[in-house]
Amino acid sequence: MQLGTDYAWIRVECPRPSASHHAAAEQRQKVLTKPPGSLGILETLAVRLAAMQGRDRPRADVARIVLFAGDHGVTAQGISAYPSAVTVEMLRNFARGGAAIAVLARELNASLDVVDVGTLAPSEMEGVVADKTRRGTRDFAIEPAMTQGELDAALAAGRRAVARAIAPGADVVILGEMGIGNTTSAAAVAAAVIGVRASDIVGAGTGLDAEGVNHKARVIEAALALHDLDGAPVDAMQALIAVGGFEIAALAGAMIASAQAGVPVLVDGFIVTAAALAAVRINPSCAPWLIYSHRSMERGHRLLLDALEAEPILDLKLRLGEGSGAAVALPLLRLACALHSGMATFDEAQISGPGEL
Amino acid sequence: MQLGTDYAWIRVECPRPSASHHAAAEQRQKVLTKPPGSLGILETLAVRLAAMQGRDRPRADVARIVLFAGDHGVTAQGISAYPSAVTVEMLRNFARGGAAIAVLARELNASLDVVDVGTLAPSEMEGVVADKTRRGTRDFAIEPAMTQGELDAALAAGRRAVARAIAPGADVVILGEMGIGNTTSAAAVAAAVIGVRASDIVGAGTGLDAEGVNHKARVIEAALALHDLDGAPVDAMQALIAVGGFEIAALAGAMIASAQAGVPVLVDGFIVTAAALAAVRINPSCAPWLIYSHRSMERGHRLLLDALEAEPILDLKLRLGEGSGAAVALPLLRLACALHSGMATFDEAQISGPGEL
Repeated sequence: MQLGTDYAWIRVECPRPSASHHAAAEQRQKVLTKPPGSLGILETLAVRLAAMQGRDRPRADVARIVLFAGDHGVTAQGISAYPSAVTVEMLRNFARGGAAIAVLARELNASLDVVDVGTLAPSEMEGVVADKTRRGTRDFAIEPAMTQGELDAALAAGRRAVARAIAPGADVVILGEMGIGNTTSAAAVAAAVIGVRASDIVGAGTGLDAEGVNHKARVIEAALALHDLDGAPVDAMQALIAVGGFEIAALAGAMIASAQAGVPVLVDGFIVTAAALAAVRINPSCAPWLIYSHRSMERGHRLLLDALEAEPILDLKLRLGEGSGAAVALPLLRLACALHSGMATFDEAQISGPGEL
Repeated sequence: MQLGTDYAWIRVECPRPSASHHAAAEQRQKVLTKPPGSLGILETLAVRLAAMQGRDRPRADVARIVLFAGDHGVTAQGISAYPSAVTVEMLRNFARGGAAIAVLARELNASLDVVDVGTLAPSEMEGVVADKTRRGTRDFAIEPAMTQGELDAALAAGRRAVARAIAPGADVVILGEMGIGNTTSAAAVAAAVIGVRASDIVGAGTGLDAEGVNHKARVIEAALALHDLDGAPVDAMQALIAVGGFEIAALAGAMIASAQAGVPVLVDGFIVTAAALAAVRINPSCAPWLIYSHRSMERGHRLLLDALEAEPILDLKLRLGEGSGAAVALPLLRLACALHSGMATFDEAQISGPGEL
């Protein structure tokens, strides 16, 4: 598979997080007034952010939430509890501030950009950036979801969205998605890339019953066979073309672009993690820039996280998407940074160490 | 065991969270623009807070952190990695703002009251409320840690601290502790109250090695035998007198008082959970008012949480104490409330339900 020269950006090596800032931050954590290691994951987060940001005092103040939306031809196969129309209805809800991620963005003082990279919306919507590849993917039960050119366009839409979001400055990027049918596409991409059966990964999405989940698995299995993606792990680009979604491709492009720009990414749940899997397979150097925010209730998420050797911060039994789980993790990053910067050292506070008296 | 009439307060029934507000909040969660249940623990938290606060729109804005400090005679047995002097040194660090909980309080815009209920501090300290029962407990390896009168005084100190903290209004109370040696006391109380062996519950505390942990377990086992507390579960009051700590008793009193006043309590890690176990055994009606914030790395915490049938919100590998884990959970309560209040309903947003099209 060849990428056109316009899309060579996606293979460009991401910078490495700063080893010296990593070491300095680890050293600082050891002399803060607490037993070493006693702040657990909050220490790890502060150290990772210091290394990624190349700062002695990491920050998560300026957060940019970018949400990509797309529709899925495969909804024709009856794989979702909700009709495709809900994607566009929810876009309006994001723009008007009534959706979960919009409430969270306000509460967290984070910007929220909603980007339509391929919904069925017939016209532009107020408060939504239109950067559409096509109105919905093709039904991958019948034909490839997208062409190579469409994949390149969706990846580039993700890159453009990140460039806009971080232009005024950003400590962290939070990525989310909306798209009725996209747990089906995400499960199909992940099954192909990891090389497992759909039935190992497929879940209830927005709320299928057991029979619905079985049907969804059969639709995916048949599609993987149709596109010759079953069995051994396949190339992520090939999987995205055959069974992907425009928002999933845009997410992968956004992650790689954010990592290339040296901005940490908070990864949300099942769908964003499937995109992360694709991103890491396309450009492995983006991996250190991804922070996994939570373990979702969607059944296959654990398998995806294991494939990425990811240990997420939260486990709140969420299964909403929209970037909501990643947004909910943001306050923990902020507190981790505040502790790292604001705590006194043993010397400063004149406190005895272990067994000193 | 008889309580004096002055201390009859501790058995006074706590109000029940409002069943009607619980039902109304559950109903609202079902019509917000998300698949029902998809916000997981954030939904549960909003519903519980609505019921406890008797409000349609629960809040966690006004948070009061109360931290109790005490010293432990049993440190003479070499059961802690740090010397007793650190308790008072850390009090100064709390007051000056350099300790983890002080940083978190600032960052979360929460008040922080530090109450010395029984440290070795020879005099009053600036920024610390002195409400001392005694300068440290007695060494429970040799004699009871406290008298009945001292237990009553420590429980009452907890009640007074909560009364002061919530007087200007409070949406939630966060309880923390400091006291070198208090994982030993907490483990001993919990082992006695649950009726398990110390070796099942004892952990590394601030940082003991394996031999240190074994020694700590032997000290507790011997003390439980000395005070006739081994074997069957014993009365929580009796356990507190024999092997408790002043800050642990104050925490139990604070929880019961907060519940009696109808204010939800965010429970921190191992030591505060041991105090919760005592509180629930002393006055079971306080149980619905306790929100368990996190699963600590301290080994026995899981056993305590199981005994309380508690499923904590976070698992961040924390083992610091001070109320830090409970404080870190506060933003999640705030976000849960914001989502509950701020999200649009399906009707308001004119969004299709499952399978409506």
